[in-house]
Amino acid sequence: MCLSLSGQVSEPDPVFIQNLYQKALGDQQGYFWLSDLCKEAGPRLAGSPGDAKAVKWAVETLDTLGYEKVLKQEVDVRHWVRGIETAEFLSKGKRKALNITALGGSISTPGGDSGNGITAEVVEVKNRKDLYAKGSKLKGKVVFFNEPMDPWLINTGSAYGKAGWQRWGGASEAAKYGAVAVLVRSLTHRLDDFPHTGAMTYEQGVKKIPAAAISTNGAEWLSKELLKSPHSKVKIILGSHDIGRKNSANVIAEWKGIEKPDEVILVGGHLDSWDLATGAQDDGAGVAHAMHAVWLLKSLGYQPRHTIRIVLFANEEFGLDGAKKYAKEGLEENRKHILCIESDGGSGAPRGFSLPAIIHDKSPELIKELDNLLARYGCKEWTQGGSGADVSQIIDDGVILCGYRADSQRYFDYHHTSQDDIKSVHPRELELGSASIASFLYFFDKKL
Amino acid sequence: MCLSLSGQVSEPDPVFIQNLYQKALGDQQGYFWLSDLCKEAGPRLAGSPGDAKAVKWAVETLDTLGYEKVLKQEVDVRHWVRGIETAEFLSKGKRKALNITALGGSISTPGGDSGNGITAEVVEVKNRKDLYAKGSKLKGKVVFFNEPMDPWLINTGSAYGKAGWQRWGGASEAAKYGAVAVLVRSLTHRLDDFPHTGAMTYEQGVKKIPAAAISTNGAEWLSKELLKSPHSKVKIILGSHDIGRKNSANVIAEWKGIEKPDEVILVGGHLDSWDLATGAQDDGAGVAHAMHAVWLLKSLGYQPRHTIRIVLFANEEFGLDGAKKYAKEGLEENRKHILCIESDGGSGAPRGFSLPAIIHDKSPELIKELDNLLARYGCKEWTQGGSGADVSQIIDDGVILCGYRADSQRYFDYHHTSQDDIKSVHPRELELGSASIASFLYFFDKKL
Repeated sequence: MCLSLSGQVSEPDPVFIQNLYQKALGDQQGYFWLSDLCKEAGPRLAGSPGDAKAVKWAVETLDTLGYEKVLKQEVDVRHWVRGIETAEFLSKGKRKALNITALGGSISTPGGDSGNGITAEVVEVKNRKDLYAKGSKLKGKVVFFNEPMDPWLINTGSAYGKAGWQRWGGASEAAKYGAVAVLVRSLTHRLDDFPHTGAMTYEQGVKKIPAAAISTNGAEWLSKELLKSPHSKVKIILGSHDIGRKNSANVIAEWKGIEKPDEVILVGGHLDSWDLATGAQDDGAGVAHAMHAVWLLKSLGYQPRHTIRIVLFANEEFGLDGAKKYAKEGLEENRKHILCIESDGGSGAPRGFSLPAIIHDKSPELIKELDNLLARYGCKEWTQGGSGADVSQIIDDGVILCGYRADSQRYFDYHHTSQDDIKSVHPRELELGSASIASFLYFFDKKL
Repeated sequence: MCLSLSGQVSEPDPVFIQNLYQKALGDQQGYFWLSDLCKEAGPRLAGSPGDAKAVKWAVETLDTLGYEKVLKQEVDVRHWVRGIETAEFLSKGKRKALNITALGGSISTPGGDSGNGITAEVVEVKNRKDLYAKGSKLKGKVVFFNEPMDPWLINTGSAYGKAGWQRWGGASEAAKYGAVAVLVRSLTHRLDDFPHTGAMTYEQGVKKIPAAAISTNGAEWLSKELLKSPHSKVKIILGSHDIGRKNSANVIAEWKGIEKPDEVILVGGHLDSWDLATGAQDDGAGVAHAMHAVWLLKSLGYQPRHTIRIVLFANEEFGLDGAKKYAKEGLEENRKHILCIESDGGSGAPRGFSLPAIIHDKSPELIKELDNLLARYGCKEWTQGGSGADVSQIIDDGVILCGYRADSQRYFDYHHTSQDDIKSVHPRELELGSASIASFLYFFDKKL
């Protein structure tokens, strides 16, 4: 890979980049596609009917755009469903319903939808250290993980990462001490009534116990009640359960390069969402970004040097099945990925891009060029590392893995909740993202 | 004024700046103040009961914070009120209500609330040129100004400025051709049903005619109908009218500097709002920013070198009465403003600051220092010119006039509408703004 300039390649043109933004802000095609996806497919949990509709929608939409190739790559996915989910706080005759939702992958409480659930004393755990300290008192209890997302971290994704252990691994951690279920504080900075789902996992060899998220307002309330009445109980009923493997697909469109057709620049998002809403942010926005960014280039008459491939991955949320299949099998043996970028951080206004060390640290002049071209559009953060989860599976020699960075403040207000719908999307912010990604693709198509 | 370093002044400390952000994001005091202002005072059109409540609220709140001086500077303001406001489209037996609102300062239609309004043919005008071209056909007509805000401008404030002539001066422009009323497309990029009010003015010597804003959806609809039926009419009833001068006040708090008490660093916003909602964005956010930024410094034990003054200006929206009075009379003869900053662009996440040419163009090393300190918090745009309207009235020799720049994408969704309330404010975005302004004050207090 050569990052220096070839004499034959013209420089990225600021006027062309301006045209990309003007077209995006003018026609708002990405926003219309996203609205359509949310409306046509609805919630798109991997393997669900909505997921199948999304695959159909993506193929049919991409098929109208004149790419050389539009295809489905079949993917076998885990399919889990939610059932009844209720929780009640019980203390000295006081009863109060709590806003909860099953974490993705949780088993049901005994008897599932028709059972009596689990009723047990609840013990609050404020962080890992607190868990270890209280370990001996957790036998037979419901463990209530209540570590808030760190308010001091400016990027909310970092705060999400820091508090995420409770949701991802809390059930097995608690089960090791004999706990019978867990309630986990929802992963958001917001104080509201919407519980946030998301994937959890069971450690092999550890007893599986049911796991649900509780809204942040619910967590604050419960914490206060437990101070007053430490031996209070909760009754939890969850009907959630796995129903085996289902069929889904990566949807791929390919626009052939004229100079280096065997070198692929990939832009992607994931087509699946959680089941509580239509996933406009996670990751409908990424789907719209990928589709619209490439379409902006095409509709302005650009001829790519490299082959540009849109990949809408299957089942990111529940095990990266689509990304793993794509990375393992690819599409054709003789093609090689040189740069991959994913948008999986929502529809916020552009802040910049993450780039691997090979660019970020070793090519400061390239960053400077990017900044010169894109700073006026709000892209000024050039961080090292951290592409999307899907493209991180792709390990071709020397591949440059990048991520689009949207403003992060609002993303976790909606993430994995019933509120993640089209109303949360600001059309101009989304479109500024599409144009930024289009410009980024254009820049590297010229440079690489 | 000396922008180079004095040997006795320690450098701005990145750790202290981090503490400012942590405190802001942790206690969210600015958001609580803003919620309280919106709840206690409500809409705050200059001279209205809400405006008086806001003045009282501001004095009482600032009085608890231990500043050396908290006072009201009485200001005489124009007071205008809205009455009935309806519009109906009439064409070949077809009738449809249009979403309109009187522009601030508009006279009523004949007879006011109890009159029959104005019924006349409506003529669409798409831009200035179109107005001049159609001039001879406007006699006796309602002129419908329908120039959308330019979608291609990234900063929405620039697009607002470009399309603003229709609202501000459209009535008199149309009246010169004999028009009887104007409907003006609302100043927002959003397509929705909420009309946006805002100040308009009548040119001296030109007949005054009533002026109302129509929602963007309404404007789009009306434009299409007029293509089908060019001679359609509208019936407009407006009861709006001036009711003379009223009393209001600038609210000022002063925190005395220990080294240069006679040099003032001013941070401000305006306390008045439009009457359709509680003005959480315009300019409740600016009020919260100013109050919280200074409070952050104080509560962390900072001792300012210069006197820091919070000024919450009266009646920005309707003639800058408070700012003019403050600029003309000042507070005390022997004090001099050296830097003034205003936040009047809403509660969006920080993007940066505007600075005068004396800093922006002539002290690149100072911008670099600011960028080094604040870029990690999202402040990376250092633009030249454009402080807030209030502080732009202050013309002390060598004064540095600055503006806080919030992300602009959502601001005009709410601006001057019934939707500008606390629900539109994102707590973390607001608080990042307060901390950014606190850091900016701290930086210049050290440097100047």
